Amino acid sequence: MDLKNYVTIVPDYPREGISFKDISTIMDNGKAYKYATDEIVKYAKEVGTDIIVGPEARGFIIGCPVAYALEVGFAPVRKPGKLPRETIKVEYDLEYGTDTLTIHKDAIKPGQRVLIVDDLLATGGTVGATIELVEKLGGIVAGCAFIIELSYLNGREKLKGYDMRALINY
Amino acid sequence: MDLKNYVTIVPDYPREGISFKDISTIMDNGKAYKYATDEIVKYAKEVGTDIIVGPEARGFIIGCPVAYALEVGFAPVRKPGKLPRETIKVEYDLEYGTDTLTIHKDAIKPGQRVLIVDDLLATGGTVGATIELVEKLGGIVAGCAFIIELSYLNGREKLKGYDMRALINY
Repeated sequence: MDLKNYVTIVPDYPREGISFKDISTIMDNGKAYKYATDEIVKYAKEVGTDIIVGPEARGFIIGCPVAYALEVGFAPVRKPGKLPRETIKVEYDLEYGTDTLTIHKDAIKPGQRVLIVDDLLATGGTVGATIELVEKLGGIVAGCAFIIELSYLNGREKLKGYDMRALINY
Repeated sequence: MDLKNYVTIVPDYPREGISFKDISTIMDNGKAYKYATDEIVKYAKEVGTDIIVGPEARGFIIGCPVAYALEVGFAPVRKPGKLPRETIKVEYDLEYGTDTLTIHKDAIKPGQRVLIVDDLLATGGTVGATIELVEKLGGIVAGCAFIIELSYLNGREKLKGYDMRALINY
């Protein structure tokens, strides 16, 4: 299956000049969604995975069925104030300003192999912060999986040393 | 499996006097997460389901593995500005003020049987708005499934006429 056929290109979103890659047309198609999930499940088995971690909210859509298929847990990474119990946080740079991500302090046990999953690898800011959160809790980043990689933004370069897999490349 | 054992009660969250039912300790446990998902999958088969719809962000965590297990699609319901293509919206009342939810206009085909999935049925505001979105697009609400129902808040009363299933009751 060529997943690229199920991506919808949205011109000038979220702002002029950006051509947004919308994966919702993969997700609302049962066959394409299953195919994408199963590809990430294969990768998860290759690298060895005890738990899935995904940043809100698209990381949930990609990561949760992978967790289910593997019969492992899923731990959400969220914006500050969204997780009810004790969290740790990491601040990271955006194009303008900074952003913060948090994870429950007990979400990962030291030594667990963690697969980080998100919809898109762009400049790598969100994934880099998620890696930092996982490692702060003593987790081992087994790999990072994405539906789409925007290779021209060099996110992979920034995250050198970590194993990465993307199903679609632009 | 008694799922209630995996819920963490967080006192005084998000504000004093509220005892928050945290399902993240179901989700980060592979066995409990699979059990909860499979229970909703059974219900989805009972009522007949062509597509899953879930409101952000916890509705994604519950609904997406159900979609995968059924090999059907998942359509997200999100806050305004979060979906990249043409949407329809519904406004609904909160305790103080109002909130708005949106869905892609092409997310559901008329006549499709839709299972709405969320973590929690409380007063029924979010689910009610999600039902309205689904029906505006011509979808048929086959049922609504939740991990937790707070029966004392009477959400079910408000949504009379719709089939509801919750795995845990308080």
